[in-house]
Amino acid sequence: MEIEIATIGGYEEVGRQMTAVRAGDDIVVFDMGLNLSKVLIHDNIRTEEMRSLDLIDMGAIPDDRVMSELDGEVQAIVPTHGHLDHIGAISKLAHRYDAPIVATPFTRELVDEEVHDESEYVVNNDLISMEAGESMQIGERCELEFVNVTHSIIDAINPVLHTPEGSVVYGLDKRVDHTPVIGDPIDMKRFREIGREDGGVLCYIEDCTNANRKGRTPSEAVARRQLRDVMRSIEDWDGGIVATTFSSHIARVKSIVEFAQDIGREPVLLGRSMEQYSGTAARLDGLDIGFPDDLGMYGHRKSVDRAFKRIMNEGKEKFLPVVTGHQGEPRAMLTRMGRGETPFELTDGDKVIFSARVIPEPTNEGQRYQSEKLLGMQGARIYDDVHVSGHLRQEGHYQMLDALQPQHVIPAHQDMKGFSGYVDLAGNKGYDLGRDLHVTSNGNTIQLV
Amino acid sequence: MEIEIATIGGYEEVGRQMTAVRAGDDIVVFDMGLNLSKVLIHDNIRTEEMRSLDLIDMGAIPDDRVMSELDGEVQAIVPTHGHLDHIGAISKLAHRYDAPIVATPFTRELVDEEVHDESEYVVNNDLISMEAGESMQIGERCELEFVNVTHSIIDAINPVLHTPEGSVVYGLDKRVDHTPVIGDPIDMKRFREIGREDGGVLCYIEDCTNANRKGRTPSEAVARRQLRDVMRSIEDWDGGIVATTFSSHIARVKSIVEFAQDIGREPVLLGRSMEQYSGTAARLDGLDIGFPDDLGMYGHRKSVDRAFKRIMNEGKEKFLPVVTGHQGEPRAMLTRMGRGETPFELTDGDKVIFSARVIPEPTNEGQRYQSEKLLGMQGARIYDDVHVSGHLRQEGHYQMLDALQPQHVIPAHQDMKGFSGYVDLAGNKGYDLGRDLHVTSNGNTIQLV
Amino acid sequence: MEIEIATIGGYEEVGRQMTAVRAGDDIVVFDMGLNLSKVLIHDNIRTEEMRSLDLIDMGAIPDDRVMSELDGEVQAIVPTHGHLDHIGAISKLAHRYDAPIVATPFTRELVDEEVHDESEYVVNNDLISMEAGESMQIGERCELEFVNVTHSIIDAINPVLHTPEGSVVYGLDKRVDHTPVIGDPIDMKRFREIGREDGGVLCYIEDCTNANRKGRTPSEAVARRQLRDVMRSIEDWDGGIVATTFSSHIARVKSIVEFAQDIGREPVLLGRSMEQYSGTAARLDGLDIGFPDDLGMYGHRKSVDRAFKRIMNEGKEKFLPVVTGHQGEPRAMLTRMGRGETPFELTDGDKVIFSARVIPEPTNEGQRYQSEKLLGMQGARIYDDVHVSGHLRQEGHYQMLDALQPQHVIPAHQDMKGFSGYVDLAGNKGYDLGRDLHVTSNGNTIQLV
Amino acid sequence: MEIEIATIGGYEEVGRQMTAVRAGDDIVVFDMGLNLSKVLIHDNIRTEEMRSLDLIDMGAIPDDRVMSELDGEVQAIVPTHGHLDHIGAISKLAHRYDAPIVATPFTRELVDEEVHDESEYVVNNDLISMEAGESMQIGERCELEFVNVTHSIIDAINPVLHTPEGSVVYGLDKRVDHTPVIGDPIDMKRFREIGREDGGVLCYIEDCTNANRKGRTPSEAVARRQLRDVMRSIEDWDGGIVATTFSSHIARVKSIVEFAQDIGREPVLLGRSMEQYSGTAARLDGLDIGFPDDLGMYGHRKSVDRAFKRIMNEGKEKFLPVVTGHQGEPRAMLTRMGRGETPFELTDGDKVIFSARVIPEPTNEGQRYQSEKLLGMQGARIYDDVHVSGHLRQEGHYQMLDALQPQHVIPAHQDMKGFSGYVDLAGNKGYDLGRDLHVTSNGNTIQLV
Repeated sequence: MEIEIATIGGYEEVGRQMTAVRAGDDIVVFDMGLNLSKVLIHDNIRTEEMRSLDLIDMGAIPDDRVMSELDGEVQAIVPTHGHLDHIGAISKLAHRYDAPIVATPFTRELVDEEVHDESEYVVNNDLISMEAGESMQIGERCELEFVNVTHSIIDAINPVLHTPEGSVVYGLDKRVDHTPVIGDPIDMKRFREIGREDGGVLCYIEDCTNANRKGRTPSEAVARRQLRDVMRSIEDWDGGIVATTFSSHIARVKSIVEFAQDIGREPVLLGRSMEQYSGTAARLDGLDIGFPDDLGMYGHRKSVDRAFKRIMNEGKEKFLPVVTGHQGEPRAMLTRMGRGETPFELTDGDKVIFSARVIPEPTNEGQRYQSEKLLGMQGARIYDDVHVSGHLRQEGHYQMLDALQPQHVIPAHQDMKGFSGYVDLAGNKGYDLGRDLHVTSNGNTIQLV
Repeated sequence: MEIEIATIGGYEEVGRQMTAVRAGDDIVVFDMGLNLSKVLIHDNIRTEEMRSLDLIDMGAIPDDRVMSELDGEVQAIVPTHGHLDHIGAISKLAHRYDAPIVATPFTRELVDEEVHDESEYVVNNDLISMEAGESMQIGERCELEFVNVTHSIIDAINPVLHTPEGSVVYGLDKRVDHTPVIGDPIDMKRFREIGREDGGVLCYIEDCTNANRKGRTPSEAVARRQLRDVMRSIEDWDGGIVATTFSSHIARVKSIVEFAQDIGREPVLLGRSMEQYSGTAARLDGLDIGFPDDLGMYGHRKSVDRAFKRIMNEGKEKFLPVVTGHQGEPRAMLTRMGRGETPFELTDGDKVIFSARVIPEPTNEGQRYQSEKLLGMQGARIYDDVHVSGHLRQEGHYQMLDALQPQHVIPAHQDMKGFSGYVDLAGNKGYDLGRDLHVTSNGNTIQLV
Repeated sequence: MEIEIATIGGYEEVGRQMTAVRAGDDIVVFDMGLNLSKVLIHDNIRTEEMRSLDLIDMGAIPDDRVMSELDGEVQAIVPTHGHLDHIGAISKLAHRYDAPIVATPFTRELVDEEVHDESEYVVNNDLISMEAGESMQIGERCELEFVNVTHSIIDAINPVLHTPEGSVVYGLDKRVDHTPVIGDPIDMKRFREIGREDGGVLCYIEDCTNANRKGRTPSEAVARRQLRDVMRSIEDWDGGIVATTFSSHIARVKSIVEFAQDIGREPVLLGRSMEQYSGTAARLDGLDIGFPDDLGMYGHRKSVDRAFKRIMNEGKEKFLPVVTGHQGEPRAMLTRMGRGETPFELTDGDKVIFSARVIPEPTNEGQRYQSEKLLGMQGARIYDDVHVSGHLRQEGHYQMLDALQPQHVIPAHQDMKGFSGYVDLAGNKGYDLGRDLHVTSNGNTIQLV
Repeated sequence: MEIEIATIGGYEEVGRQMTAVRAGDDIVVFDMGLNLSKVLIHDNIRTEEMRSLDLIDMGAIPDDRVMSELDGEVQAIVPTHGHLDHIGAISKLAHRYDAPIVATPFTRELVDEEVHDESEYVVNNDLISMEAGESMQIGERCELEFVNVTHSIIDAINPVLHTPEGSVVYGLDKRVDHTPVIGDPIDMKRFREIGREDGGVLCYIEDCTNANRKGRTPSEAVARRQLRDVMRSIEDWDGGIVATTFSSHIARVKSIVEFAQDIGREPVLLGRSMEQYSGTAARLDGLDIGFPDDLGMYGHRKSVDRAFKRIMNEGKEKFLPVVTGHQGEPRAMLTRMGRGETPFELTDGDKVIFSARVIPEPTNEGQRYQSEKLLGMQGARIYDDVHVSGHLRQEGHYQMLDALQPQHVIPAHQDMKGFSGYVDLAGNKGYDLGRDLHVTSNGNTIQLV
């Protein structure tokens, strides 16, 4: 059986991930993501109303025209988790394929919301839930399995396509976390089994986001311990405390919420995306995040303002707003608080916790710097970088290669500079560029069998 | 009563700390430290055999000639903790003063060892133990109190000289740690009391090592959690695992020792200074570090080699050597392991944990880089930066100023660039350069009353 | 005679410079500048219409309320050169003082324009021209002299106030340039004379912008040589070439204009401030910049668009637009070109020369990054950093201290971190913090005699 | 005719360059270089006495065992210029091949010296001189041409192998310099011709050292202008002035020598390699460097000491020693001067000019930092970075691709991270990874026809 990989998007950047694997006549597509920075660099663009081709030309969504070179039928579209760079192009591209979208429950919900917000295209693909640990048939001779992984969003999986020629493991995005705060640890046992099955692993596509960083990405439990340390240390502060983090990072939001209660404050989630992700997670059957029943979440401008007014009336020292704006985004809640545009009044000594890292890119760094300046002008004190990444560093990669022992390796989710650490590492494990280690770019196909 | 501060050493650098406080006719000296980098830049220098004046000329020890300008009698020499930059010049300078050396028990022991190793001077000063929380009379009207603080070495204190004009708080070196793994949390309650006593705090001398860093220095408990995460993640590795950290960092060594046992390995401490500090801590009455009774510690070359041979004979996978060399020092144990100069043979995939941060200075960075290169050439995998600093960042400084509300503030333990973050912060709290915020240099005196 | 220095603005930042020197009953004010970044961080602010007190509260202009503590009469307001951080607050503050504004001819013109643009205050102070090398009487016993210096704007001087107690040399802003392209070399001979006159130099206030940088700031002739190298290397390019630089940097604009002609292109200056500064320079009597008589300069949106249309019609390869936008300012000409908002169409391979350095601050870095991204998306090729700074580095400072041998030194035009290199350097020359080296902050006074 | 490229060394690093091109039965080898850092990381190694295999295992010289896979005869070994990373393995590897070494006259001399210093192997290959612009026959159907390029050493060329299938251009190392101080400008006209000849350019192998840097590498004339600016600015200094630069950088040494004379000082070249390269250049027939006839060059320890003594006796202010040690190498002349180990006594205010950049690698940075510290402790003032690189930046690459229009491109002389900027650039010019843009590693072969 012929096995072919099309590296459609996300092989020259972080963002707009899309990969197709053809096994004989059957094709599975992994991820259809959006590169948000390619949108934001333009003023006043509303992607909901844009055509696919324009977004492709902007570099915002994957250029899936290479799909026509693959001789087979798409059997499934598989978003691996709910981040925009993995699901954000589904509403623009999925309708071209006559195939269901298969995802874990939380991811499925987020895809559903994306599709509903779309105004340009009607996306009628079936939305199928499949849990980590489960499998489904693909064509006559292949099987699609979801292996549980740990990432900065819940319900993330690595899909594995079992073929007669061996497995193809699509390894985006994860870290090796044995104590992930919410959900199960990464299923290393299953990865090791897959590596030792008949046929073994034909190909492993890997998340290289942090491949230039030494050591091991700490567990979410370490971020939680650090967060507790920060929040406990300001327990006695009788003014305002505000926290911000990635809205989709439910485990982190949960920790903030818990520690807020521990130090005697009522947590309130504020901001559109904060409300969206946490609300979705809370509503999901079978998933017990452990949010308090009465946890306030407000997304619309008016209800946010009302919540802020209540906080100011009842006393800032009784609340802990959890808001959007960790990257200093100009229109996010925290930036507006820094500009004094909300009813929440910051005063001398108030604390702002960034439970996030600045994504290292000059635009973000500039915006975050401005946001911190504005907050500082109001007297706020900053706790930054209370965070761990959701992506493997080098020793995680080392362990994955050890577990899977793949015949071929394809680094992804970075640009050439980002791949360099991975190429060195794989080189040490005996892989060779141009032989079994494939550094490639968007729009290529690699014939493996 | 006249109160005068002499900023003798450590006001233009980190290292060779020394400060004298005169209250009327009585003088107390805080710290007499060594700047090791000023020694190491020269080849083949043995400080034990050097004269004070030569070391002063090299900038290695404080230039205490300014003491002659202080009109009073030295009543006590008070090293605040056992790091070399605070005690390393006692053997060269203390004999000039007819005064006892007053220190906590662990610090006292380390001073005792320093003094014994000295070949050029005989240091006959009394060595007096005083615990955190205790006080002693200084002259007729002053009192010296030890307040418990948390730092990267056990038994650290901040001495407070209570005078009729208010207290002088000597704030070197510490972080605000409520969960320090060994010993009591920092005594913030006592600092707040001192700040509110009659007379309040006349002057606060502060450790600015990390004053340019935002946020809060995490607790040792956070480093411990991260260390556990790293060590648990390599539990299944059946080859060598080696760890390195600051030898004087007993709490960290303790954590490594415990986690080594948790993952089924026998910890062994190797290297001269590793043996010295941990041995001293283990032997100290009244201090229960909780080391296992049979913990192996070997300092001499021959016994180290014997230990390594035993490890190689019985199987690397059964042991966890804890060695010197975290900064890549050319002659330290880990560097020698990288060069293949010890009986311990590193092989592909062996793990090396740096539970330390490179001290950010090009010489260290170069040496550490070389050490990691050498280890890598043997196949070792590196886990670096499993560490938190022992020094306050900005929000710790903010809390200290809040607690003490000092009339005057003197930043120390840095150079001008290092003071800048502190000057900004103190400015926000209402202090003014040239009025009550004193940026000064080595060899000055400041008349406060 | 009492001599007192009030360090009013620009002693904690670069921007909003203002210093007053009182000699007996007579006061001279040096500079009244604007800190533009404190304005731009807010949205939609028009400084022309704002009150002084609001601008002071924002940190945008100097807080001159400390002037009331100086017991004397202001005899002159002396802007040292035409940059906004030195003249930008004159329109908000000068009317409070009954004193003429004394400046070199080009600076005088720029002040005149500032004052005319002001809508909130009427500034009636006399505007007096004085050339470098000339002097005027101040009160009965003092004299104000202008010494020629070299900076990134023409007609810059260092004012010297000769008093019976020695001279006060106000050393902002300059580099030591013996080949400055336009105008005379820095008058080091005169500085050496002043240093050796009776009384010598009582006090030297110094521009520390680059005091942390080693070596020597290269001459403008070096930037010119590098610029020639770049422009000659693209001589054969038959598409668009665009250059950007500081509009006020007349010498640089002149070099670009000349080299444009050398490679057979017609230079055109485009953008409001580009037109303003170069127009002013060209119109000034007695100053021969050497611009071609028919050099096109267009500031208004309509005339700029017309010029761009002509360029597109006649052929991009025949022109070289010199535009604003070197820092990536969102509304500047070059950024608009990157967004495709002007009639000038960039195409693959077109060249953009940044004859400027990004001012190292995250906001600028973010904006410049975005601007380069946008230009790159149009196919433009970037030549950046074709530039030398206008400010002394360490060896220039060393030479100034050698020449002037001042009794007292006050570092300015930076924050504490920026002063650190200067404090080290002055320390090596024998100056001591707290004795004759005065690190201070905004709003202080220093009594020298 | 089959054309095959073997990428033997220097495709994962800067250093130990070696590439073989097979055209039918004929093979030409380009470069045989040494990676010095792989030697220096070990203590006390003398490469002259080492076997090839040991040096290969250390990663110090190219692993040429892949040559056995090439089915043809080596017709020529072609070192492109005299730097060690291009010629330093000739003495260890060339004897294995029955082929002459063909090089420009200066390179030929340096190879000759290398071969003479070798103690382990006898290298009997013919040494043939060929000038830039000349050609020689290779086998029956190919021709080897030398095209003049500009680099940080004189007499550098890019060899071109003309085959019936098109040319193979070996593009290491160069910058595009139209005013190179010594020798002819880069022969861009010839490159453009080769690009437009019948068959065009089949393959271009490119020097990516600076491929991540924007803009254009300035001409040597720019470095010369900056050097003149520095040296003129200290013309009046009546103490010591010392300069250091790359010993092999004859054009730079020439500029220093000339400006030394201009400011009334006698230049003296000191240090083993300084004497070697400049001596070789001066002795070479047909090359007129323009050194003064009586220029002193001293390499042996004793003659250096004698020269230093003469300088101290006659007065430091009359001389300008040009010495080795620009990277802070521990045993180089300048470092020894910093340690006070030479008869030359540095005193307060003496000037040291580093006409070189620190090669950005932590080991160098650490050593250079130490060297500057030591010099500073003697009172020396540092002028650093008076330099331009010898390697193309991005716009030079852009121009080369424009000129040659190669069918295939192979980036070299860097690691993966270093290639990233080149891959982006080539991508913009229409090249595609995995199609006509070949990112590869050491020991691979690429079949082009």
